[in-house]
Amino acid sequence: MQLEIHAFQAAYARCLDDEKLEAWPDFFLADAVYRVTTADNFRRGLQAGLIWANSRAMLADRISALREANIYERHGYRHILGLPLVAALASGEARAETPFLVARIMRDGATDLFATGRYLDVFAHDEAGALKLRERVVVCDSSRIDTLLAIPL
Amino acid sequence: MQLEIHAFQAAYARCLDDEKLEAWPDFFLADAVYRVTTADNFRRGLQAGLIWANSRAMLADRISALREANIYERHGYRHILGLPLVAALASGEARAETPFLVARIMRDGATDLFATGRYLDVFAHDEAGALKLRERVVVCDSSRIDTLLAIPL
Amino acid sequence: MQLEIHAFQAAYARCLDDEKLEAWPDFFLADAVYRVTTADNFRRGLQAGLIWANSRAMLADRISALREANIYERHGYRHILGLPLVAALASGEARAETPFLVARIMRDGATDLFATGRYLDVFAHDEAGALKLRERVVVCDSSRIDTLLAIPL
Repeated sequence: MQLEIHAFQAAYARCLDDEKLEAWPDFFLADAVYRVTTADNFRRGLQAGLIWANSRAMLADRISALREANIYERHGYRHILGLPLVAALASGEARAETPFLVARIMRDGATDLFATGRYLDVFAHDEAGALKLRERVVVCDSSRIDTLLAIPL
Repeated sequence: MQLEIHAFQAAYARCLDDEKLEAWPDFFLADAVYRVTTADNFRRGLQAGLIWANSRAMLADRISALREANIYERHGYRHILGLPLVAALASGEARAETPFLVARIMRDGATDLFATGRYLDVFAHDEAGALKLRERVVVCDSSRIDTLLAIPL
Repeated sequence: MQLEIHAFQAAYARCLDDEKLEAWPDFFLADAVYRVTTADNFRRGLQAGLIWANSRAMLADRISALREANIYERHGYRHILGLPLVAALASGEARAETPFLVARIMRDGATDLFATGRYLDVFAHDEAGALKLRERVVVCDSSRIDTLLAIPL
């Protein structure tokens, strides 16, 4: 499943960087859990995160809200994902951990290091055989995360 | 072809970062198209780019010119490529999209985030069976690109 | 061996970023060589590096010393590895070159680009069949490396 997960992660990153946000929920199963948290909170076992959703419908709602709110010109983002570490599960599912770095490109062209962290994922195939996320916990390394709330990670 | 493209991209990045610029044209077919542009121009469908070449010979000329011009001490660069997204084509060729980040290392040791973007590639095998680029469009995320003209990406 | 090395590199990076430093020597053979140097020194063929060890026991000692010294709160680190370039050796071993970028996350949440470079590795299987490093030379792009001495790379 390693190469299949490589391709999935590449497609996921492209979807976000191309700002095709309406396609983003399709990377998840209908009852998927999606959570964004910080390394500090994660280490302490705190469930409260910056973002929490337990269905694909909630993710779609989030995108709708984001589109309405973002009347200003957007920054650009570039996700660079490291190599995923994959462990097959007995269920036929797989657990994967993938480090990420996100660069932010301002409208004036300045580029900075926006965020780093890791995706803690559970992958499963849906009834059509397509690989989807059953669970994604996005653990951001930094505790400075206010602005993260604007975009999916 | 996914793993073959992984290896190709790794070799391409190493060639540039090792400053083996004379070997760079060999990653392309003789009649390859190579183009560097910005995300803004690319989105608007503008063909005009920062760099444009339609043969390996033009790439070799470019390197010769670069070597003559660069009498000053060079900065170093480090390309970090993300996971390629590969789609096989009916022709036996493949289309791939690969995100990149380039760090620049100054002579005094300072390191900054130089550029981010993506490679939009068409890969084909040459008559000897070696994987080569038939086309590479380098889409830089930022519109601040003057200095990009100095080095191949 | 390409995918096996991908997985190895992902596990290695995770070990460091999770600060599981006591597990770090296990990525090496008992008589492995580990060296950290700069691109300048490497280019000149200078053997003297910032760190030099020729056994797993020396690596374990280094971690013990590090744990004793680091009574202050640590920064966090995030390794993003590029695609490895792998060449099989006749011996059944493999040589690999992998570019890396390390971001540093300060306690106050600020994130900067800490280091870039490449791993020059020789991989071998141990008697139990597990993939290990026989040799890792860490070549840092920048010559500003004092602070690098604090953490393994």
